[in-house]
Amino acid sequence: MTVRVAVAGASGYAGGETLRLLLSHPGVEIGAVTAHSSAGRTLGSVQPQLAELADRVLGKTSAAALRGHDVVFLALPHGQSAAYARELGSETLIVDCGADFRLRDPAAWERFYGSEHAGTWPYGLPELPGAREELKGSTRIAVPGCYPTAVTLALFPAHAARLVEPEVVVVAASGTSGAGRALESHLLGAEVMGSMSPYGVGGGHRHTPELVQNLSLVAGERVTVSFTPTLAPMPRGILATCSARLRPEALAAGPDAVREAYASAYADEPFVRLLPPGQWPSTAAVLGSNTVQVQIAVDPDAGRLVCVSAVDNLTKGTAGGAVQSMNVALGLPERLGLPMNGVTP
Amino acid sequence: MTVRVAVAGASGYAGGETLRLLLSHPGVEIGAVTAHSSAGRTLGSVQPQLAELADRVLGKTSAAALRGHDVVFLALPHGQSAAYARELGSETLIVDCGADFRLRDPAAWERFYGSEHAGTWPYGLPELPGAREELKGSTRIAVPGCYPTAVTLALFPAHAARLVEPEVVVVAASGTSGAGRALESHLLGAEVMGSMSPYGVGGGHRHTPELVQNLSLVAGERVTVSFTPTLAPMPRGILATCSARLRPEALAAGPDAVREAYASAYADEPFVRLLPPGQWPSTAAVLGSNTVQVQIAVDPDAGRLVCVSAVDNLTKGTAGGAVQSMNVALGLPERLGLPMNGVTP
Amino acid sequence: MTVRVAVAGASGYAGGETLRLLLSHPGVEIGAVTAHSSAGRTLGSVQPQLAELADRVLGKTSAAALRGHDVVFLALPHGQSAAYARELGSETLIVDCGADFRLRDPAAWERFYGSEHAGTWPYGLPELPGAREELKGSTRIAVPGCYPTAVTLALFPAHAARLVEPEVVVVAASGTSGAGRALESHLLGAEVMGSMSPYGVGGGHRHTPELVQNLSLVAGERVTVSFTPTLAPMPRGILATCSARLRPEALAAGPDAVREAYASAYADEPFVRLLPPGQWPSTAAVLGSNTVQVQIAVDPDAGRLVCVSAVDNLTKGTAGGAVQSMNVALGLPERLGLPMNGVTP
Amino acid sequence: MTVRVAVAGASGYAGGETLRLLLSHPGVEIGAVTAHSSAGRTLGSVQPQLAELADRVLGKTSAAALRGHDVVFLALPHGQSAAYARELGSETLIVDCGADFRLRDPAAWERFYGSEHAGTWPYGLPELPGAREELKGSTRIAVPGCYPTAVTLALFPAHAARLVEPEVVVVAASGTSGAGRALESHLLGAEVMGSMSPYGVGGGHRHTPELVQNLSLVAGERVTVSFTPTLAPMPRGILATCSARLRPEALAAGPDAVREAYASAYADEPFVRLLPPGQWPSTAAVLGSNTVQVQIAVDPDAGRLVCVSAVDNLTKGTAGGAVQSMNVALGLPERLGLPMNGVTP
Repeated sequence: MTVRVAVAGASGYAGGETLRLLLSHPGVEIGAVTAHSSAGRTLGSVQPQLAELADRVLGKTSAAALRGHDVVFLALPHGQSAAYARELGSETLIVDCGADFRLRDPAAWERFYGSEHAGTWPYGLPELPGAREELKGSTRIAVPGCYPTAVTLALFPAHAARLVEPEVVVVAASGTSGAGRALESHLLGAEVMGSMSPYGVGGGHRHTPELVQNLSLVAGERVTVSFTPTLAPMPRGILATCSARLRPEALAAGPDAVREAYASAYADEPFVRLLPPGQWPSTAAVLGSNTVQVQIAVDPDAGRLVCVSAVDNLTKGTAGGAVQSMNVALGLPERLGLPMNGVTP
Repeated sequence: MTVRVAVAGASGYAGGETLRLLLSHPGVEIGAVTAHSSAGRTLGSVQPQLAELADRVLGKTSAAALRGHDVVFLALPHGQSAAYARELGSETLIVDCGADFRLRDPAAWERFYGSEHAGTWPYGLPELPGAREELKGSTRIAVPGCYPTAVTLALFPAHAARLVEPEVVVVAASGTSGAGRALESHLLGAEVMGSMSPYGVGGGHRHTPELVQNLSLVAGERVTVSFTPTLAPMPRGILATCSARLRPEALAAGPDAVREAYASAYADEPFVRLLPPGQWPSTAAVLGSNTVQVQIAVDPDAGRLVCVSAVDNLTKGTAGGAVQSMNVALGLPERLGLPMNGVTP
Repeated sequence: MTVRVAVAGASGYAGGETLRLLLSHPGVEIGAVTAHSSAGRTLGSVQPQLAELADRVLGKTSAAALRGHDVVFLALPHGQSAAYARELGSETLIVDCGADFRLRDPAAWERFYGSEHAGTWPYGLPELPGAREELKGSTRIAVPGCYPTAVTLALFPAHAARLVEPEVVVVAASGTSGAGRALESHLLGAEVMGSMSPYGVGGGHRHTPELVQNLSLVAGERVTVSFTPTLAPMPRGILATCSARLRPEALAAGPDAVREAYASAYADEPFVRLLPPGQWPSTAAVLGSNTVQVQIAVDPDAGRLVCVSAVDNLTKGTAGGAVQSMNVALGLPERLGLPMNGVTP
Repeated sequence: MTVRVAVAGASGYAGGETLRLLLSHPGVEIGAVTAHSSAGRTLGSVQPQLAELADRVLGKTSAAALRGHDVVFLALPHGQSAAYARELGSETLIVDCGADFRLRDPAAWERFYGSEHAGTWPYGLPELPGAREELKGSTRIAVPGCYPTAVTLALFPAHAARLVEPEVVVVAASGTSGAGRALESHLLGAEVMGSMSPYGVGGGHRHTPELVQNLSLVAGERVTVSFTPTLAPMPRGILATCSARLRPEALAAGPDAVREAYASAYADEPFVRLLPPGQWPSTAAVLGSNTVQVQIAVDPDAGRLVCVSAVDNLTKGTAGGAVQSMNVALGLPERLGLPMNGVTP
């Protein structure tokens, strides 16, 4: 059985990566490939890396163009997905790489996005407790943000096992593809190379409420998140450094108990690799793969647990997570079409 | 039918990339994975990107360890392959990523490598005229050097069609993985980033005689090559800028005739992409793929043809070329296990 | 009056940067320039950027070679400074870029460095309260570590004004020159580019006790520091992202009160630039300069103050801080020989 | 005596670098600092590296704003300088970083720029034979293009001494600041990092006629130039790899004679450093400095001379060359305000 898929927003970084993965997915046939301002151009002129589809001409994104596919991937600016969802009907699996349906709390949506809340779809992070059950058979998937993917997988076992207090500090470095293909001066190569700088400091980043939501659900209590994203001089990758104060009983139980919690949470996860003691995650090691590297350390002097994860923001952080969730939803083998090994060095 | 392969030199960059490709090759089972000073360590500690084989312990490279496989990939320092070839016997396909069996002229070998010439094996560049016939069924393959792969594919159609004079100028930029994993001060990240610098200037690079050999064979006359390699601040990729004076009749025939020669040379090549007019090769666009991007321009004022190619030095330039040649030798579909789409941005 | 200076350890990154600054210092004459294994080579072959001193031959580091100078800069591995200090006598100003005399607590030294404590010298961070008085006329200076420079300047006004609780979380990204010129596989360009990764996680980094010391002194109480350094794909620069819970009264007082504390702490500091609201520090903007960029934000949801600073680890973080402290000690204008403007883009 | 200078186009990369150099020039006072669309913003928000002038508000570029200064630096898009030159009068020294007055041949200007030729001003490359005499006392200076600076200094001694034939091949790699601050997709950091790619291939780059002009003047005969510029993943720097066939008598005379020609051409040049044999130029080694590194090699097999130079495209390649030429024109010491040592690593 072959699944026929469409990709809307194919001229952006997320759309391009989705196509790269789908091209090597043995159960998929690529149908409509659409864009907005690049419609009419060849894919090869916009995504020169997609040699296999170089001569394909980009269609114009519209409900009509997307109709008639088994699966539609939306890689669009936020605010546009709801309309397509209405028009496409419930027989089509819609995998939304945008933010529209991630949040459960309408107030959080309105505060951070300034528009009306569109709703909430099953959340495409299969590693979260209960997520696979919810995704299986669903025809709507909200793909997590790239930072929430990295941070949630770094922290949730600690919250699930009640090892840490509900007050988390996260500093994450992202490659500049995370900012998308927008033409802004501070994203120019000459300004990015050699530069580390933060943005959205003090709680302003739109992924903050998604982090709060994920960790609070797992912890069973309200978790606060001090989140500082930084832009790093690399094309791809997120390194998330997270920490929280250890609860006294966890501090007393010692590092082995913490490790045990992580080892058991990730024992059967194909894409999460808890590294052996002493080895630390690196964004380079997961480049182009759907693998998440995780490592933890207890700092006895500061009384904190430090959890670090590395993902490729475009693969596991976006397009890979999307394809993985599609596989789960359709009942396909979860690893299908998803590289596990990074392109390194 | 599954082919059982061994990889010797698995702790280096070429060995790691070979394993990455073989892990996604549907016709291959990975047997021995060996190294020299890293023997006894896990592959995950040496090649952290190879999540699927992370717990595999590296064996010690030896003829005994490599024996009993259908295919043996050698990613060793030059000078070591001949001994393994003798011990492994002719029933094993040996794919040598090293230099030992690339050159036909013993004098050239001795001049550039300072040791006795080991011999000449079928040359693993299937795109060269006659190469597939020679590789098919062979049990010995000499994988081309990374620069010769890029340069030969940029230039050979021009020489084959006698469009240019036999005097070529090549300036090529390589990512620093091309220098291997040697611990040298000038390869440190702090010195590499922000730096472009040449080396082996004036004909001293060991790939020079291989370039002369390839182009002279195709041209049917002695071709001189002024070759300047440069180190570029990127992990991977080669951009080869090559030029030669156009013969008067080619200059008179005009750019379309040149393009026609390239289009016909590469019409059926799965991995060579002659870009549409106006689009130029980029190393980023072929990252992690076996694709070669090629583009040409006629400079009427200077009377020269400029030919540019981009390859990933570790994929098409080494490990990908090796796997592609293995596929040809074994009669497997040539594209098996080889990504065509780059990991970009 | 011209001061005659010697630089020991001139083949390393800190020594090279010290020479670069001294060469443009109008009150300085460069005397002995020494190294260990590079002794006998020209400076131009080891530090090709120092065009003005390219033909100078490196001497062998020894007390005899360093004697007879007004100022001696030591850029040596830790553990070697005490012996030179004894031999040079108290009439020579010794500016130690190493760690030996930074810590006041012998137990902290022994725990993190594993050897006997050599003593404590005046601390070369003139911006700290009381530091200029201590440095003035001193003939011994312990130059701070690069991370402690960045972190202390990001945080101390908050601690001095008792705005935050004594429990700090720091995640800092450093360019790879911070690791020095050591030949280690993970510092190779091919492995560094595209890679963010942490090290010394969980309190293990040797700069941790120095951070605790600085902040505790200013706060007047024991401050704990959860410090995670990360290696970023750039040659130079540190971005330090620091946060602490705001005390209830500071949270009530609001962001303006916090900004006021910083503005007043840095009002007369030539090298610290508190950025205007909305602008964030960037390592690129301080490249090659002695300037520190600082910015702060209050996160009301998380109840934390986030303080971010950017420095060039080799300039303000090492050699610039050393020259600045020398200027203070000798009574020279503090800005002499120190660039304030970065080399950007 | 202090010279009062204005800088027009201060929001771009060339304007920013000009200000950085002028701020450390002891004979200069900075007057008007103007821009086009950034007028009204603080310099610190546009050029965050210029800490010393951060609070200065950018004026609007106009003849009125620039009038009344001793020196006016123009860092404007081409086509705008002539109007300012007319309005400012001949008592003001105008240093034009743009292209308008570089070419002598109106036909070449019209072919490459598509507009009417404005004229020709003294050429700001003091190292060229006769250039200092022409610049001294002049009130108009055309600053060379960045590539022509690098290439001309790599090649002219060979042409002046008639060592090579008048047919040159140049491949040059430039950091992306060379493309200016234009918002174009292919200049985004995510697309630039990891990427080497050529542009303007086949003679189309606007610096080609300037190269032909410079080399032809020195050679005393028409020199053809096959020029391929490439974009390299670094913020700054140009590495120019140039070669030409050696004339038979030069080939016979041997490498020492070639070296002698270069050594004598550059014996008294403060900013050109002919490297010792065996050492090769690196863009990192000249970062932020006005130094040019040059090295040469004879390739006996190819019969060619290979000449390589490294410059910082924004310093010696633009703003440094401009300040150096101003110094010559005004009779100031030529090195004033110009760093000779690079910011490395």
